[in-house]
This record gives sequence, structure tokens and C-alpha cells, in this order.
Amino acid sequence: MRRFDSDYLEGCLPEILEALSRSNLEQTPGYGEDPHCGNARRLIKEACGTPDAEVHFLVGGTQTNATVISSILRPWQGVVCADTGHINVHETGAIEHSGHKVMALPSREGKISAEQVKAAIEGHFNDANHEHMVQPGMVYISYPTEAGTLYGKSELRAISEVCRKAGVPLFLDGARLGYGLMSPSNELTLKDIASLVDVFYIGGTKQGALFGEAVVFTDTRLGKDFRYNIKQNGGMLAKGRLLGIQFETLFTDGLYLRAAGHAIRQAAKIREIFAGKGYRFLSDSPTNQQFPILPNGLVASLHAEFGFEDWCAIDGDHTAVRFCTSWATTDEAIKELAAAIPQRA
Amino acid sequence: MRRFDSDYLEGCLPEILEALSRSNLEQTPGYGEDPHCGNARRLIKEACGTPDAEVHFLVGGTQTNATVISSILRPWQGVVCADTGHINVHETGAIEHSGHKVMALPSREGKISAEQVKAAIEGHFNDANHEHMVQPGMVYISYPTEAGTLYGKSELRAISEVCRKAGVPLFLDGARLGYGLMSPSNELTLKDIASLVDVFYIGGTKQGALFGEAVVFTDTRLGKDFRYNIKQNGGMLAKGRLLGIQFETLFTDGLYLRAAGHAIRQAAKIREIFAGKGYRFLSDSPTNQQFPILPNGLVASLHAEFGFEDWCAIDGDHTAVRFCTSWATTDEAIKELAAAIPQRA
Amino acid sequence: MRRFDSDYLEGCLPEILEALSRSNLEQTPGYGEDPHCGNARRLIKEACGTPDAEVHFLVGGTQTNATVISSILRPWQGVVCADTGHINVHETGAIEHSGHKVMALPSREGKISAEQVKAAIEGHFNDANHEHMVQPGMVYISYPTEAGTLYGKSELRAISEVCRKAGVPLFLDGARLGYGLMSPSNELTLKDIASLVDVFYIGGTKQGALFGEAVVFTDTRLGKDFRYNIKQNGGMLAKGRLLGIQFETLFTDGLYLRAAGHAIRQAAKIREIFAGKGYRFLSDSPTNQQFPILPNGLVASLHAEFGFEDWCAIDGDHTAVRFCTSWATTDEAIKELAAAIPQRA
Amino acid sequence: MRRFDSDYLEGCLPEILEALSRSNLEQTPGYGEDPHCGNARRLIKEACGTPDAEVHFLVGGTQTNATVISSILRPWQGVVCADTGHINVHETGAIEHSGHKVMALPSREGKISAEQVKAAIEGHFNDANHEHMVQPGMVYISYPTEAGTLYGKSELRAISEVCRKAGVPLFLDGARLGYGLMSPSNELTLKDIASLVDVFYIGGTKQGALFGEAVVFTDTRLGKDFRYNIKQNGGMLAKGRLLGIQFETLFTDGLYLRAAGHAIRQAAKIREIFAGKGYRFLSDSPTNQQFPILPNGLVASLHAEFGFEDWCAIDGDHTAVRFCTSWATTDEAIKELAAAIPQRA
Repeated sequence: MRRFDSDYLEGCLPEILEALSRSNLEQTPGYGEDPHCGNARRLIKEACGTPDAEVHFLVGGTQTNATVISSILRPWQGVVCADTGHINVHETGAIEHSGHKVMALPSREGKISAEQVKAAIEGHFNDANHEHMVQPGMVYISYPTEAGTLYGKSELRAISEVCRKAGVPLFLDGARLGYGLMSPSNELTLKDIASLVDVFYIGGTKQGALFGEAVVFTDTRLGKDFRYNIKQNGGMLAKGRLLGIQFETLFTDGLYLRAAGHAIRQAAKIREIFAGKGYRFLSDSPTNQQFPILPNGLVASLHAEFGFEDWCAIDGDHTAVRFCTSWATTDEAIKELAAAIPQRA
Repeated sequence: MRRFDSDYLEGCLPEILEALSRSNLEQTPGYGEDPHCGNARRLIKEACGTPDAEVHFLVGGTQTNATVISSILRPWQGVVCADTGHINVHETGAIEHSGHKVMALPSREGKISAEQVKAAIEGHFNDANHEHMVQPGMVYISYPTEAGTLYGKSELRAISEVCRKAGVPLFLDGARLGYGLMSPSNELTLKDIASLVDVFYIGGTKQGALFGEAVVFTDTRLGKDFRYNIKQNGGMLAKGRLLGIQFETLFTDGLYLRAAGHAIRQAAKIREIFAGKGYRFLSDSPTNQQFPILPNGLVASLHAEFGFEDWCAIDGDHTAVRFCTSWATTDEAIKELAAAIPQRA
Repeated sequence: MRRFDSDYLEGCLPEILEALSRSNLEQTPGYGEDPHCGNARRLIKEACGTPDAEVHFLVGGTQTNATVISSILRPWQGVVCADTGHINVHETGAIEHSGHKVMALPSREGKISAEQVKAAIEGHFNDANHEHMVQPGMVYISYPTEAGTLYGKSELRAISEVCRKAGVPLFLDGARLGYGLMSPSNELTLKDIASLVDVFYIGGTKQGALFGEAVVFTDTRLGKDFRYNIKQNGGMLAKGRLLGIQFETLFTDGLYLRAAGHAIRQAAKIREIFAGKGYRFLSDSPTNQQFPILPNGLVASLHAEFGFEDWCAIDGDHTAVRFCTSWATTDEAIKELAAAIPQRA
Repeated sequence: MRRFDSDYLEGCLPEILEALSRSNLEQTPGYGEDPHCGNARRLIKEACGTPDAEVHFLVGGTQTNATVISSILRPWQGVVCADTGHINVHETGAIEHSGHKVMALPSREGKISAEQVKAAIEGHFNDANHEHMVQPGMVYISYPTEAGTLYGKSELRAISEVCRKAGVPLFLDGARLGYGLMSPSNELTLKDIASLVDVFYIGGTKQGALFGEAVVFTDTRLGKDFRYNIKQNGGMLAKGRLLGIQFETLFTDGLYLRAAGHAIRQAAKIREIFAGKGYRFLSDSPTNQQFPILPNGLVASLHAEFGFEDWCAIDGDHTAVRFCTSWATTDEAIKELAAAIPQRA
């Protein structure tokens, strides 16, 4: 069985296992106050070009989203996002659990536009009954999006401008950030992102770490007392150094981007396999998730040999499916997949 | 200035003021444990044909919705409703504040269908990732809806069947219940409603009381410890008898329906005024809210003499507005309105 | 049966009923934006000597406490108070429901001291593990306290100074404020209170209104967007004018304090009845609640003729009970009580 | 520097690192649905003698407590515990964040008694105002307690009986469970515990794992839909197998108890060092945490060479401190400590 179900099928990059082994008997303080975390913070701030940013490490994506969002919003505020946004669909209501409405906007291939954001914010405050409605208190976008797509530089800049003009913080979910940065379609550097958003996170879990997400507050006022909130949300890892060691490793010698680059190249091969045999795609994804649309018969037969996710029904006879790649995707797996895909009828 | 902005522009039905005056110096226990509340409960259960129901009194609609819904749902569950539902739009996120997602479905004139509800519930449990998504834990509908429309008997029965089959409680928001029951288009009795839903409320605030909503749990298991939850949600009125006295009065000699009937007749006159002069409507409402679509120039000039609400923009030149009637709407007001409306160009 | 169970046994002051009747057919906007609310706000700000304060009206005490506290605290903060504080004991966890710990300090006759507050705040920030503990984010006191006692001027000033130095807002629960202001032991004017605390409320429910509490933000930054939070907490009364009319009436011609003064005089008579016959008291209350300690046999026999609350067991044979007075407590009731109390054995 | 600050100073038991390396390139499904988790569940149920229990894996203790407690309580319920309980003191209000009051009882060396629990529950329901108070909905105890002490078999049985009679679930926090089971003072087997409580967890983080806690629901009704709640609380690890692999390793060949036994022996040596030199202790702890009371001068000088935690001031001149041991505590470290402790003056 060759699996392409997700980008977290294996353990971790070998460099990370080595670093964990090497440091195993060191004695360090807990809760992220150890030298490894300190070093990882320094490396990340350097990579982002933000010496004054605040960097915090959390364990997983849902936890990170809920902790960041609940740190920023007042009780009567909600977070504006794409209807396909992870926080709206796949977090079992973690945001609502913290008391806040997810204010979903219709999306296009996983993206929302500056115009939509502007209309949502202005529409709220212009409504005579606005005090009876949830106040838009921040904006959440994903890069890459859940559909694998990317915001262009002008698109992100436009959203950023709308948010700053309105005084509404902009949060970028970078669970797969490296895959975005290494995509041939990418127009943004890490420094661009750091300068355009107020807080974002650099995903580890889906990019070769055992687990871990690094939150970067470029607007440090939003991060005040954030460690309290991490603890309250159950995200304060006792052996916090595990996060430090992993991000230290990822941000040394370019490992983070190198590993992502491998995944991007493997994904491109998968895209070519399906495109070359005549299949269409749910979205035009230049990143590590590919969403070909397949006849249901093929979906069923492929599942016998390959792991992948059924994403959504297209019509009675066709399903969009998701193939993911990662640092660990082998050429052999790709070849076997290529051999198994017939020309489209 | 003649106002049609809402159905809570005046104080209350004179019978209620009289009852409050008459009882003013009685000494009673607080928190709804007085004889007036007891009597009102009895009268309401009689009217609903549900001798075993549990009846509780709360102050307002948002409070009632939040308290009922948070009593029923587990933390990871949400409430399915129309996207136009009051809980989704006009309660400043009170449901999310209690930790639950409002799972909005696209609506048609304020209504959702049994098919939609079935698809939402089955779609959830059939999804391989359902544990990563909010579980539909109850269904909320309004009668009349926020668009003034009514579910037919077969429509409500179908939704009820879907819910009971799935083991998902059905909650009916009856903030304007009397206006539904007295509408010429109404197909449901109070007893029908009580037998088809698991919990509902009978609105007082918008139907001639100073304030107050009567919650009826026909499935009394859902009402276990409900008084604790009323208190926690700030809805336990110290002088609870004020609610008892008002509902006692409303459910004596048919006052509740009689007052609603007056409003319905006045609303019909308003509908005829606009329809007779060639205007279209946002929804085909047979209840006390009417939504004519007017040219923006007329909207502006009418506002100088009449109170009404701008509901939503239809296009650059037209706006749907809302006129409400109540027990207190006079013939004079209607006549003045008629005189002010020109034939549609 | 003569009842002294609480200070909300009757309806309301006759002046309020008259004002409601007089205004009943006026048409006004909802939600507290009517002229009566405007006028009541003006009268209250005048009485408090705070022309720039923000005044909001809510329905009940638990609702008011939860709404004010959740408006001020960040998620990881809690509210410091006396262990006997209403928010700690008698609100069914409304504060915790909004996500915040009630940080109870041991109290003395319902009071806490500036030293305790200082130690709680400094102790927190000096603790090496403070990020693992709830951060004290505000202080709550009651005036009068739940034990009927009063803070002296120097006591309140000291607490205020500690709070201001620490940047921690001070909130005063004045559910029975008038009874404090009219007590012969009172050392504080309404203006003193307004100048020493950051937000407080003036209770109506327990002082002759049908219901209603007036929140005064002297630090208006704390009240930003407070109307959203009222709505989210189910406290935005549709017919908000009912609150305006009541407070307008209470703050016209000194009615609020006059009514409280009557209650204070009647309470003094009750205190003299018990003290004169040799009974001790749970607390030395100079306000409208009296807590004599009675032998259990007497408690049982008195309950046949009088309403009062069993407050707490003192030992196997004695119980502290509570007698309350209000604007409506008659001389006849007091006389009958006097006649029923035997000399202490 | 020799550190005894906590039991999570190092990485993990070497066996765990080996297992992680060995399995690193396996492809498995995420979220705890992999074969390692399955195997670990089987091993734990076997060890507990509860073939029908439900076992779930979470990342850390605060997260586990908040997720278990919020799964069990209704909104108006709270959790009864010792005032020293971890959930009351050191979780930054995570329980209150989920909406529930922590109902702290005075403790004795970290323990509460069956009598106290009974009085808390009965006292609540016997109070005439119980609907105005938080309802006790479950009981939380720690084994070992935060003071390092242990419940005797008859003590735990008595608490269990009170809870079962009252229908109130009993939850045991076993963050350091192994240290309890391996203590010479221990009277309970894992099977005893499993039969006396309704849900408990077996701690990994503080006992040689990188991280991880295994929740065992012996009353499986309490665990219904628990995976939804794990996800909502941000505890659903994408690479869930990391938890499975660790607990698989810990519960193979007795590693879990063997590692705990080492810590217990080292802690006994530390106790003897201090006791032998005349020092008293804050609590009589037979587990891996020792709390000697030292003069402040000694505390200061020791900190130059040793890591340990200042626990609480005893008087102006003395402080109780905490020394912890773990699987990794070496004989050398103990010897150096012994050499550094002077005879008590």
C-alpha cells in the first residue's frame, strides 16, 4: 500500500530524530524556556526579518488557531474567513468553543478577496443593527489555502491594507507555509508575509516535524500574555524543548524549505500524471496537495492499492480526491501511482 | 410620526398593566415559584394539550434561545438552522458565546426543508472526518420565520420526522407564535406544534407583554435542571411573578390570540395598500411583518413621517423595507400610511 | 403571613406603576435608545457627579455582573472577590460560564481588605509559575456586602489605591446601593463611590423597581462596545424604555434614597427587637438585612407566621436567619414580629 | 548544575527513542487510528483488567483534565476537588475557560476525604437555594496528590462509594500514577483504581515519555463522542501514533513501573538525606516529590549548584522546597546533593 492520504503519514525528518537523540539527556527547564527554544526563536526571527517579533511554539494546528484567535478577539467579536477555512470546517468548533463566531465568506478555490473583507467589515458597521450582530474582529486566511492555492502578492497586500485601515488584525495560518514558499507559483517571501500580516504561524506537523507550529507575532501587542493563553488552552508542552529542538533543526541549513521543495516536486509529478492522462482538477493547486477529479469506479479500484482522501462528490459519477506529498514521498510511490492511472475515457 | 418599526413600540396590553397594579402589594416568593407563575403554567399546558410538559418563563428572546440551546447541546455539537435564523444573524453571537456553532443552511423565504435537515445530519455522520467537524445536535426553526412566512403542516411534520428518526431534538422559536397561529395561512394549532417539536417558546415581548417568553418542554428530559441554566444565563428574574402575571393574563379569555388577530388584520391592510399600488414584496408574508420593495426615493421621503425598518438592498435603486403591526396598531396610522403611498411608477 | 424573606417580595413603588401607565401608549425605539433612557442616564450622571460616565441599563444582578466582568477580563484573567461575594456563591457559576475564575479571598463580615487585594495581586506576579495560574484581572466588592455591612471611606479608598497602582479595575456591585447610602453608618456619597471605583451599578430590583440595574462606567474605556456584550449576554431588553422609565422615576425627587431610607428605618426596628430581647447577630449590619441568631425551636415556630430565610447553621441548636426590609415593609408587620419574639432564655 | 526541579527535565526513556526511530518511516493513518495506538490500548486495558474500557491518548495533563471534565459536566455543574488540586491552582483557569467552576475543598496534605465530598454534595442539594449555586457534577482527585501523598485503599473506596451513591462520576488524575503504584506506601493496584473510579489517566509526560497521557474510561458512557471533544480541545495529535508508540513501549516488559521504581528509590535517598540531617518536611511524601523545609540561607546557596523549586514560604526564615526524581535521576546527582546539605543547626 502506497499512501498519499496526508502530509503526516510518517514520523519525522531524520535530522530531527538525530537532534532529539543527541539532546536526550540534557536537563532543561520546561515550558519553552530552554536554550533550544531560545535558539529556534532567534533563527525564525532572522528568517522572517523581524528582530522584534514574538515567537511561541505550540503542538498542533487547531490548538494554535484557537489560542491565537481567542487571544485577539473580545467576546462579541468573530473571525472573518473563507467558508472552506480550516477553522470553519475541520476543527470541531474549537473557535466557537472559545466563544467566537466564525464569519465565513464564500470562497473561490479556497481564497477570499480584499473586496469581500472590506464589504464584511464596512457592511457590519454601516448596519443600523450592528450591535445585534457579531463584530468582525480579525481576519483569518490560509497560505497555502485548504484547496492548495496561493494568494498573489497584490492579493495579500490588498487584504492587508483593508485590515490595517480598519484596525482589524490579519492572521495567516501557515500549517503548510513551506509548501507555499517553495511553489513555483509563489510570489511571496517569508519576509513579505511577516510584513503584511499581524500574526502567522509556520507549520511543522505537516512539514516533517513530529509535531509543532511556530507562531510569530509581528504585532507584539497582540501577543501580550500569550503564554497564559497557551497554558489555558492546554498547549504548554512540559518538555517544551521538543518544539525548540525541532524548529532549531528545521531552520538550520535550510532544512525547512529543502524538505518542502522535495514535496513540491513530487506533487508536480502527480499533477502531471493526472493532467497528462486527461483528468481535470477541483482546483489549480501549485502546492503539495493535488485534487484530481476521478470517475467513481477508478476511485474504488485505486483505494485497493493507494491511500488518498475522497474530498467531495462532483456529480453522481465523479469524485474529487486528494493526493498529498511530503518530504518522505518516494519516487517509487509516484511511479507505481503513474502505472495505475489509466488514460481518461 | 407613525411608527411601524417593530412590534414592541408601545408598553403593553392594558389588561397586563391592570393585572400588575392589582397584584402590586401581594407578597410572593421570587424566581418563578409564586402562584401566578403556577397558574400561568397550568393555563399554557392546557392550551398546548400537554399536561406533562415543563413550562419556564424567561425575559427575552436571545436569552431564551441561548439558554434552551445550551441546555441541550454537548460541547462539540452545534445547532442547525436557516441562514436567516435569528440565532445566526441578530443575537451578537450569543450561541457561539455558549460554545456552540450555528450551522446555517441556505433558506428560502426564511424556511429550511426536511430534506436539507436530513442531508445535514446524514452528511455529517457519513463523512469519514466527522469527528473533526461540529456534530449537528439539534435543529432550530422559527414560526413565523424572520421573513414572516409559515411552515405548512406537512413541512413541519416532515422536519419533525427527520429529527426524531435521527434522535436530534427540534426547537421552535415562537417569538411571534401568535401571529402565526392567527394568520389566515396558518395550518397548525398550538397542540400540533406541541406534538411535533421537543421544545418551543411562546413569545410575549413581541405580542403585547412588557417582556417575557414562555418555554415549553414537551420532551421533559431536555428540561432537566433547566432552572439552574436559567440562573446561570442571567435569566432568573427575581420578581418572577411579573412573568407569571403577564402570561396568566395573556392566556385568560383568549387575550393572546385576540391581540395577535388584530395585528394580523392590520398587517393585511398594509399588504393590500402596497400590493394594490403595484409594489412587489421580498417575501410572501401572511403574518404581522410586511416587506414591500420600494424605490429608494420613496423610502427616504416616507421616513420623514413614518417609522419602519430598511431591511436589505435589492438593487442600486430599490430597498426592501419592513412594516410591523401589533395589538396597538391603529386604523388611523394605517390610513395615514395609505394616503402617503403613491401608485408605483 | 408576614414576609421578610427578601427585598423583592412586592411589585414596585407606586410611582413606577404610574409612570408605566402614563407612558404606555408612547411609541419609542427599542433597546435603550428612547428618550426615557436618555433622561434616566442624565439624572444618574448628575447624581454621581460624573458627566462623562457611560450609563447602561440591564435587567438583573447576575446578568449585570456577568456582562460587566466579561467585558473587562481577558480570557486568562479572573476576578478577585470575597468568598461570600454574590458572584462566588449565588450566581450558579455565571462568571465561570463566561470563562473566568472567581478568585475568592477569605472575608470578614462580607468584606475584604486592601492588604488582601494587594497580596493577591503581588503574590501572583511574584510567583515564578504565574503563567500557570489565573491572572487577577479585576476586583469585585459589594456595597453593602452580602452580610449587610459597609466599607468605610478609608477602607474603600485603600482598595481603590491598590487597584489603581496595579492597573486592575475595581467594580462595585451596588444591588442594594441605596440601603448603604441611607444607613446611619454610611461614610460614602454616591460621588465618592463614583470617584473611587471604575465601574459600579445602582440596583433597582431590590430597591423598589420591578427590575433593573444601572451600570455606571466612570472609566469609559472599560465600557467600549458594552452594548454588544449586553446583547450577547441576553440582557438587551427589547422594550428598553421600561428600564429608562423606572430609573427616571427613581432618580426624580429623591425617590430612590427616600424609599431606601424607609427600609433602613424598618430594619433598625427589627434589629432593636432582637437585640433588645437578648439575641446576638451573625454580622453587625447597619443596612436593610438583619441576621439574628435564633434557637432552632424558635426558627421553626416563627416560620408558621413569618417569612424569612434560614441563612446558616451556627451550631447544632442555633441558626442565623435573615430578615429583609424594603420600601414596602409596614409598621404592622414589624409590630407583629415584635410581638412574636420572646425574650432570649 | 544538577537539576531536581521537575520530573520532566530530560527527553525520554531510551526505549522510546528507539521505538520512534524504528517506526519512523512507517506510513500510518493519523489521529490515533493507527496500529500502534491500537496495540497500546490493548496493553493498557490488559494492565487495568478492564477489557471493555475506552482508552484515549492526549498530549499533556492540563489538556487532558480540561477535555475529560468538559466531556462529563453539564454547563451548570462544577468539579469538586482539593484546594491544592492541579486544576484549581496550576492550569491558568483551563477548567473555568470551559465554563465550569472548580469547587475547591480544604485539603490535608493534598487529600480530601469521603466525608468532605459527601457534605459538599448533600449540602448542595439540601440548600433551599441550590438552583442559585453551582451543582457538584463530578469529583477530581490526584494520585499521587500534588503534595506527593497517597490515598489509602479504604480512603479511595470510601470516596468511590459516596460518588456512586450520589451518581457523581469520580475522576482520578494520574499524571504521576506510576510513582504512586511503586511507592512502598501504596495500597492500590492499577486494577483497584480502575474498579473504583469512573475515569482516570495514566501519565506519560512526567514518567519518561516525551509527552502523552492515556485516559481510561471504565464507565464508557462518559466517553461517548470523546474524540470530538479531544479535537475541539486541540488535543487530537495529527501523528497520533507518537502516543501509541510511546505507551506501547511503556507497557511492554514492565517499563512503565520499572522506570517509576527507579525514581522512587532515588527519592527515598533524598528524603533520607534531609531527614537524617534533621530537616522537617512539608508533607510526608512516599513518592517521587520531596518537600523538605529549609532555612532561606541554605535555599539561596543551594540554588547555585542545584535546580529545585521553591514551593511555599513557611515563615519569614524558612521555605518548603521541592526536589523531584525521575527515571533519569543518577546516583551521582544524589551523592552531590548529599554532600551539599549541612546538618540542621
